[in-house]
Amino acid sequence: MPLTTDTPRAIVREVGLRDGLQSIATIVSTAHKIEWLDAAHAAGQREIEVGSFVPARLLPQLADTAEVLAHALTLPGLVASVLVPNLRGAERAMECGAHWMIVPLSASHAHSLANLRKTPDEVVAEVARIRAARDAAGSRTQIEGGVGTAFGCTIQGAVAEDEVLRLLQALLDAGADRVSLADTVGYADPAGVQRLFEKARALVGERLAAAHFHDTRGMGLANCYAAWQTGITRFDACLAGIGGCPHAPGASGNVTTEDLAFMLERMGLATGLDVPALLALRRRVEGWLAGETLHGTLWQAGLPQTAVPAADLAAA
Amino acid sequence: MPLTTDTPRAIVREVGLRDGLQSIATIVSTAHKIEWLDAAHAAGQREIEVGSFVPARLLPQLADTAEVLAHALTLPGLVASVLVPNLRGAERAMECGAHWMIVPLSASHAHSLANLRKTPDEVVAEVARIRAARDAAGSRTQIEGGVGTAFGCTIQGAVAEDEVLRLLQALLDAGADRVSLADTVGYADPAGVQRLFEKARALVGERLAAAHFHDTRGMGLANCYAAWQTGITRFDACLAGIGGCPHAPGASGNVTTEDLAFMLERMGLATGLDVPALLALRRRVEGWLAGETLHGTLWQAGLPQTAVPAADLAAA
Repeated sequence: MPLTTDTPRAIVREVGLRDGLQSIATIVSTAHKIEWLDAAHAAGQREIEVGSFVPARLLPQLADTAEVLAHALTLPGLVASVLVPNLRGAERAMECGAHWMIVPLSASHAHSLANLRKTPDEVVAEVARIRAARDAAGSRTQIEGGVGTAFGCTIQGAVAEDEVLRLLQALLDAGADRVSLADTVGYADPAGVQRLFEKARALVGERLAAAHFHDTRGMGLANCYAAWQTGITRFDACLAGIGGCPHAPGASGNVTTEDLAFMLERMGLATGLDVPALLALRRRVEGWLAGETLHGTLWQAGLPQTAVPAADLAAA
Repeated sequence: MPLTTDTPRAIVREVGLRDGLQSIATIVSTAHKIEWLDAAHAAGQREIEVGSFVPARLLPQLADTAEVLAHALTLPGLVASVLVPNLRGAERAMECGAHWMIVPLSASHAHSLANLRKTPDEVVAEVARIRAARDAAGSRTQIEGGVGTAFGCTIQGAVAEDEVLRLLQALLDAGADRVSLADTVGYADPAGVQRLFEKARALVGERLAAAHFHDTRGMGLANCYAAWQTGITRFDACLAGIGGCPHAPGASGNVTTEDLAFMLERMGLATGLDVPALLALRRRVEGWLAGETLHGTLWQAGLPQTAVPAADLAAA
């Protein structure tokens, strides 16, 4: 749509290189990851989570995160983030000059113990250590605390909203620069999203900076819309919807980048994204992922040939 | 979720037997349609569009509408509707005792001429004739005017909101008992949906009684959520997402019944639907539709094993 300074903006943060690739068996080469970064940047993506600083034996798919990050940092205007599970990972992120490091915390106590081998409050304490290390090093790498299983979990079931809110505040108190909320297992519905995000925004304001939804049961875009209504403008997504749900073979993982970009543009928001270029990149990435199940709808339906942005119709 | 008299309700109106089956090549037998009706009723569905009174040479898939309707009328508490394109179809609907007849109108002038061979205002005039015939006959069959291509069309592109609103009012003035809005070609985005439904509700109030979305570009559930926020509680959907988009081979048609039912239940609304029973019915219908592309996500991900209704978490 025609971009003016008044056009509200939205950011699709690409997490396919991290959340997507870590969830599939195929190991994409460093050269292809760099090709992906270049094409995503050319298509207008300006925030990309490029990998994860975890031991290579745990996630061989992301063992080249330092190299991929180094390339990302050469792309003009690109904000590069990495996932770090602990202080050790954070030290690498800072050494490598990542713009943001995202520390995952699971609001579900059971999920936290199973996946991170720490309680949620132990993760909060780790964030405090990461913040102290950053301050001591004079690093400019910023810290995002990502609260996952915020809408329930496959192990313990319910996760209380009050506990999620408490952990958001605790992360900020421990020194995180901002926080985000994630529906790690695809349990969220839009009414629940709107309710929890409203409460979280009331509590921490603009420091609640991103929403991370999975499309496991088809509600990914609905949940993005619900979060957007509470003022959220940064959404995580994976190109081609790569990455499945580990608990449901064949089911989708994250929201699909190109579908989300199309929706936001149709809503009249400026994303800076070239949707046809994203579709072309999807086809390229698809070629590297033979045998993997991809997701999304726009690639199949295609862009409307005759449509005008819906926002222009209000005045038509 | 636990049902109380205070629990807000939502209705999933099944349109698979009409919109779904008319869009695919396979002709489902009358016996199977009756089996479908019985199982849908057993799964809690209480509003079903059972077919269309159009000439059998145009839609052989729906040639048995009178028989299917006759069976639907034997099911306790079931509200049976049929689509009627003109007075002739309306006369059959009334003769057969349908509870509702839905008269489609296309807000896109070009789409209306191409598909209905009438202008939108000629359809309004036909609704006036249908109303007069009903009054003369003393029939109790009610009239719903369904305004399609309300969010744009594949032929003319933009459809002005003011024109959609004018036609809603014109249908009611001509004698329709209520009206609905449809995104016939899958162009709608949730912000546009919310804006247009708000305007329409402001204009005609509760007489705007249903929303009909296609999931062509993955926004079907998001659009339902957006419409729900304006007070809409009746949504059209197709079991197994049957019915494609004629303009995009392989792309999905209507919102998928079982996915929508799951979302609404997760939102804390009472739908009266037994989602596992809908999934079982999906598998049965799938067996009748070999070679057809089906849609939806819940069948693949499955129901959450540990989830509690999100609405219960607010108090948790």
